[in-house]
Amino acid sequence: MKKHDVVEAIVIAKQKMNLTWEGIAASIGMSPVWTTSVCLGMNSAPADKAEALCKLMDLPEAAKLALMQCPSKSWEHTIPQDPLIYRLYEMIGVYGPTIKEIIHEKFGDGIMSAIDFSMDIGKEENPKGDRVIIHLNGKFLPYKAW
Amino acid sequence: MKKHDVVEAIVIAKQKMNLTWEGIAASIGMSPVWTTSVCLGMNSAPADKAEALCKLMDLPEAAKLALMQCPSKSWEHTIPQDPLIYRLYEMIGVYGPTIKEIIHEKFGDGIMSAIDFSMDIGKEENPKGDRVIIHLNGKFLPYKAW
Amino acid sequence: MKKHDVVEAIVIAKQKMNLTWEGIAASIGMSPVWTTSVCLGMNSAPADKAEALCKLMDLPEAAKLALMQCPSKSWEHTIPQDPLIYRLYEMIGVYGPTIKEIIHEKFGDGIMSAIDFSMDIGKEENPKGDRVIIHLNGKFLPYKAW
Amino acid sequence: MKKHDVVEAIVIAKQKMNLTWEGIAASIGMSPVWTTSVCLGMNSAPADKAEALCKLMDLPEAAKLALMQCPSKSWEHTIPQDPLIYRLYEMIGVYGPTIKEIIHEKFGDGIMSAIDFSMDIGKEENPKGDRVIIHLNGKFLPYKAW
Amino acid sequence: MKKHDVVEAIVIAKQKMNLTWEGIAASIGMSPVWTTSVCLGMNSAPADKAEALCKLMDLPEAAKLALMQCPSKSWEHTIPQDPLIYRLYEMIGVYGPTIKEIIHEKFGDGIMSAIDFSMDIGKEENPKGDRVIIHLNGKFLPYKAW
Amino acid sequence: MKKHDVVEAIVIAKQKMNLTWEGIAASIGMSPVWTTSVCLGMNSAPADKAEALCKLMDLPEAAKLALMQCPSKSWEHTIPQDPLIYRLYEMIGVYGPTIKEIIHEKFGDGIMSAIDFSMDIGKEENPKGDRVIIHLNGKFLPYKAW
Amino acid sequence: MKKHDVVEAIVIAKQKMNLTWEGIAASIGMSPVWTTSVCLGMNSAPADKAEALCKLMDLPEAAKLALMQCPSKSWEHTIPQDPLIYRLYEMIGVYGPTIKEIIHEKFGDGIMSAIDFSMDIGKEENPKGDRVIIHLNGKFLPYKAW
Amino acid sequence: MKKHDVVEAIVIAKQKMNLTWEGIAASIGMSPVWTTSVCLGMNSAPADKAEALCKLMDLPEAAKLALMQCPSKSWEHTIPQDPLIYRLYEMIGVYGPTIKEIIHEKFGDGIMSAIDFSMDIGKEENPKGDRVIIHLNGKFLPYKAW
Amino acid sequence: MKKHDVVEAIVIAKQKMNLTWEGIAASIGMSPVWTTSVCLGMNSAPADKAEALCKLMDLPEAAKLALMQCPSKSWEHTIPQDPLIYRLYEMIGVYGPTIKEIIHEKFGDGIMSAIDFSMDIGKEENPKGDRVIIHLNGKFLPYKAW
Amino acid sequence: MKKHDVVEAIVIAKQKMNLTWEGIAASIGMSPVWTTSVCLGMNSAPADKAEALCKLMDLPEAAKLALMQCPSKSWEHTIPQDPLIYRLYEMIGVYGPTIKEIIHEKFGDGIMSAIDFSMDIGKEENPKGDRVIIHLNGKFLPYKAW
Repeated sequence: MKKHDVVEAIVIAKQKMNLTWEGIAASIGMSPVWTTSVCLGMNSAPADKAEALCKLMDLPEAAKLALMQCPSKSWEHTIPQDPLIYRLYEMIGVYGPTIKEIIHEKFGDGIMSAIDFSMDIGKEENPKGDRVIIHLNGKFLPYKAW
Repeated sequence: MKKHDVVEAIVIAKQKMNLTWEGIAASIGMSPVWTTSVCLGMNSAPADKAEALCKLMDLPEAAKLALMQCPSKSWEHTIPQDPLIYRLYEMIGVYGPTIKEIIHEKFGDGIMSAIDFSMDIGKEENPKGDRVIIHLNGKFLPYKAW
Repeated sequence: MKKHDVVEAIVIAKQKMNLTWEGIAASIGMSPVWTTSVCLGMNSAPADKAEALCKLMDLPEAAKLALMQCPSKSWEHTIPQDPLIYRLYEMIGVYGPTIKEIIHEKFGDGIMSAIDFSMDIGKEENPKGDRVIIHLNGKFLPYKAW
Repeated sequence: MKKHDVVEAIVIAKQKMNLTWEGIAASIGMSPVWTTSVCLGMNSAPADKAEALCKLMDLPEAAKLALMQCPSKSWEHTIPQDPLIYRLYEMIGVYGPTIKEIIHEKFGDGIMSAIDFSMDIGKEENPKGDRVIIHLNGKFLPYKAW
Repeated sequence: MKKHDVVEAIVIAKQKMNLTWEGIAASIGMSPVWTTSVCLGMNSAPADKAEALCKLMDLPEAAKLALMQCPSKSWEHTIPQDPLIYRLYEMIGVYGPTIKEIIHEKFGDGIMSAIDFSMDIGKEENPKGDRVIIHLNGKFLPYKAW
Repeated sequence: MKKHDVVEAIVIAKQKMNLTWEGIAASIGMSPVWTTSVCLGMNSAPADKAEALCKLMDLPEAAKLALMQCPSKSWEHTIPQDPLIYRLYEMIGVYGPTIKEIIHEKFGDGIMSAIDFSMDIGKEENPKGDRVIIHLNGKFLPYKAW
Repeated sequence: MKKHDVVEAIVIAKQKMNLTWEGIAASIGMSPVWTTSVCLGMNSAPADKAEALCKLMDLPEAAKLALMQCPSKSWEHTIPQDPLIYRLYEMIGVYGPTIKEIIHEKFGDGIMSAIDFSMDIGKEENPKGDRVIIHLNGKFLPYKAW
Repeated sequence: MKKHDVVEAIVIAKQKMNLTWEGIAASIGMSPVWTTSVCLGMNSAPADKAEALCKLMDLPEAAKLALMQCPSKSWEHTIPQDPLIYRLYEMIGVYGPTIKEIIHEKFGDGIMSAIDFSMDIGKEENPKGDRVIIHLNGKFLPYKAW
Repeated sequence: MKKHDVVEAIVIAKQKMNLTWEGIAASIGMSPVWTTSVCLGMNSAPADKAEALCKLMDLPEAAKLALMQCPSKSWEHTIPQDPLIYRLYEMIGVYGPTIKEIIHEKFGDGIMSAIDFSMDIGKEENPKGDRVIIHLNGKFLPYKAW
Repeated sequence: MKKHDVVEAIVIAKQKMNLTWEGIAASIGMSPVWTTSVCLGMNSAPADKAEALCKLMDLPEAAKLALMQCPSKSWEHTIPQDPLIYRLYEMIGVYGPTIKEIIHEKFGDGIMSAIDFSMDIGKEENPKGDRVIIHLNGKFLPYKAW
């Protein structure tokens, strides 16, 4: 069983069992973003979480191994086309140099890790229109001199 | 005076006067991210803020108009190369479909606005390595049916 | 049943039942452009409209859910090739900066939303050759300062 | 004097004389969209309109010829980056096949001309947020069989 | 039956029945270039021509409808690779600005239509090597001012 | 003096002396298309024609050598953007495989040369709109077997 | 039977019958490079050579026709990736302008034909490492003036 | 003095002194292809050859160092546009897999070096049209197993 | 049996038999990097190593031949997307010119071979986080002058 | 003074003073690779090292600040063209998936950092041809689960 097949199986099971990503995450004791990314094949799960996912959605034994495999991460459109994802791309285009200036001012030369990193997504109710809150938290990695 | 010339002038003034982006932002009463993006030519400033920037950095009169102009936003590398900015691009590639799933689950069909939107960048001290915190807050826009 | 399968089913049903996009739209009480985009899988339908489409074209139960799903919007050619669609792309290339100037002159800094937005297509009879009328109506979104 | 130089001269004159595109258009008796596109170098002007523009903005004699020249139309970003222009590109990506279906249904096989074509941009005041109205009017050209 | 299937069926029938494009064209009373383009799925046929093609090559009833459908015109290589087609692309690269100059000199600002347009291909016998003759005839469309 | 400089000089001289491409071509006894392509730097001229051009437009001695140099042919947009040139590109995309079929049917396997080749452009007056006539004449080159 | 199928059949037959490209070429009385290119579907064979190939490798009757068809020549990677082929691409990048200078010096303005052209590949034994010899022989085609 | 400046100086000197690439090569005792590539900045020259070139063309002292520098080799068009160079690119596209098959058959797994490599260009007189001869000679490098 | 099929078979066998790349390499007496690259279809194996791999993993007879075939090396993303591989790409972007300077300083003009080349990957335990060690060893190839 | 200007100044000083990268590195007590990358503008230097570089090469005061600035790292060719750098790119294309497999086997899911990372380049003398040794040492970063 390959990553790709598990993803298909999870999407079908989720719909049939009427689950939500938040519900799945809660039931395995992890965050919704990380859990969803594992279910979409973009992260590997530790053995106990993989097993918990299989139990919850009644997936075959082979699914556990596939969920534990290190994924080969890739995406189709180097410039995203779906409007929701494109807006995030645009923010990086427009604010990239700004973010760079401010991180260097606060931390010195280095980057925010995309590996030792977490993300949460929230909802702020607002009478003029609800707002999406995205929270990124990544380790600062200073460039090494040698 | 064009946008591009004001940006050059601000970068030079900031270095000569030994200012920080945070300091500049505080002195005009706006956030550091928005202020920096204005100074880098990626946003237009309202008249009073443009004037405050000009006073603070002793910029010529023509700079005020240029700061108030609507910029033509663009970026050079459609796939960013600077490691700090690339990591953000990678997050969107890896987590884009996850973010989409979760926003649709919480809000229904629509997007997070990249226009009615704000961003803050913070620092979390941590003995294992300080952490960069990025906070995005954008209005949810539901797709219209007609 | 996936979005893609519903689109195929609708195209076949439409031909078999000898329907028109305008007729389908009228029978569910929505506009032709929005209705066609839903039928081609580029928008999600509210429950009642999805049900109406299923009834009209005798689609299976699973089609309703698929029509209600949030689509992942994408297109194949980043520069369109079909002459009809290319002409629209060319107009944006040629008139893009003009449109930008005029919207900024009328509204200030901001954009026309592609989400809170509607489109209509009409026909103007003309002895020298009929004319296509396209009408776009999108909410102006001013850039936020913070 | 080249097209490019006239555009620069017009942009400077417009700012110095505090003109608007709408005002310039009115004073030469043409529409704002066409007039702006001529001033940005994307269309050629007939002799009388070129002369009127030169008089209005006190441009040198050579400017008239340059305004009358057939431009070589081009644009920098094959996928636009400025958010205002990108949203139009996105509409064509998302709604292109829909527009194609509806034009073929109403007119038969053919296209909407991007040459024998006009565009107007209006503003609809609205308490929930003003709206941008774009109106396209292009001749239908049926494919020839021979 | 889709466009694509009709094309396959025609190619097979043509080979089996030992037909030529010129022969097919003659038998339906149209030109070889237009007829071939219809048979390759790049143009739509009026009802009587579609029927004539079906009769000639003994195609199923559904083929007639498919031949009448408006095609979605596209090509695989944005820069052609097949040497015969590349040479034409190269001519446009090398002579494009020349053609533009001469058309503007003869007709004023505008273009040659690729829609209201016909093409013929001939053979000129020549002892030093036969020559290919390509004849393009397209309506001149002047840019509209409004 | 480089190719590029001669082109600039010719464009200026042509405007000042109020010449046409057709007139220039007639005065050196060559066709308008070839002559224009030489003047735009896309072909090399034999010594006598280079001299005739220099005399006609009163170009400096060094211009003759530059006109005789073998040009490095190139074009900026791999997919043309100017509408007049794009339409030709589109014809090749849409009709490329058709042209290939018909040339192979008439001549066997091989290509039409883009080197041993000529082009003429004419005008056909027509009450419904004048028509552009482009005539290509290229040597057929059969593939060699060895 | 399509080109693509014949290529597959030849590759299998060659392996089963333990043939070499050189052996196949010798047995049909043609050069190895041309013969291999025909077997890989990149050239068409005259009837007698197609028949000889079919006999040698016991291919079905339909293979003969497919071998005689004019191929649509194309390649997957516009910049080759296989190291052996990339090295040839690199030579053209590095030595292209040099080759151009020398051919123009020896022959005048024109090109080396890629159609009326042959290639041979040899092996030069050498104690420091054997050497690959590639020999290209193409007709010089002078640009036509008209 | 930079590589780029020496190249300019050599091109000018060559024209003024009426030299040919072949003559330059003979006078420094090297082949025309290598010599031309050095003069165009695509190879570095050993000290004595650099000096000989400087003497021959009366270049300043700094030119010697620049000729000896290791160049950063690059080319502008990843797909060449000049017809002479494109034809070579096309040969590699069309014959690349054929060359690969034949080298592997003759030598085993490995490549022809583009570094330990030489090239010569000759002219074969022929009543039907002279022919260009290109001769490549590169070391075979077998893949290492470890 | 094609390369692609052997790779699939090896991946499945490795998982079923619970092997590691290091274990497979040790059992055939080769290095882990080379062995893995053979198993992933990116290198050809000599007959004895191919046979040893087949025995170890109980692969069918045809697998031996496929393992011995010269692969057509290619990769999907010209700019890698998987974060682990991208980091290596980034190193080459950032340090490429540095590596070039230092190799030229130490060896003169030439390159490091990617063919006569080996690679090893090690692990350095470290209390602050283990470290990956990659060791590249390639023959220096000086450019040839001729 | 900008990064770019310091790089120019250093390259000139290095040549005039007849320094080597290795010598410069030794004199500031850092490694050659890191030192060279700083001098080429691809890394920032701590204050003391920047000062040491300025003293050694007699650079103006402003150079120190420029050397300390955080660079915006970028490279021109997304697929490198210089043969020395391309070979490294090719290694990553060919061996990327192999490296990924082996790192995951040794360390689990994660990556090798390109930030907390060092590189050394050595020379191994060898009678059959000297060899280039490149040594990479990067921190392993495990993916975080949250």
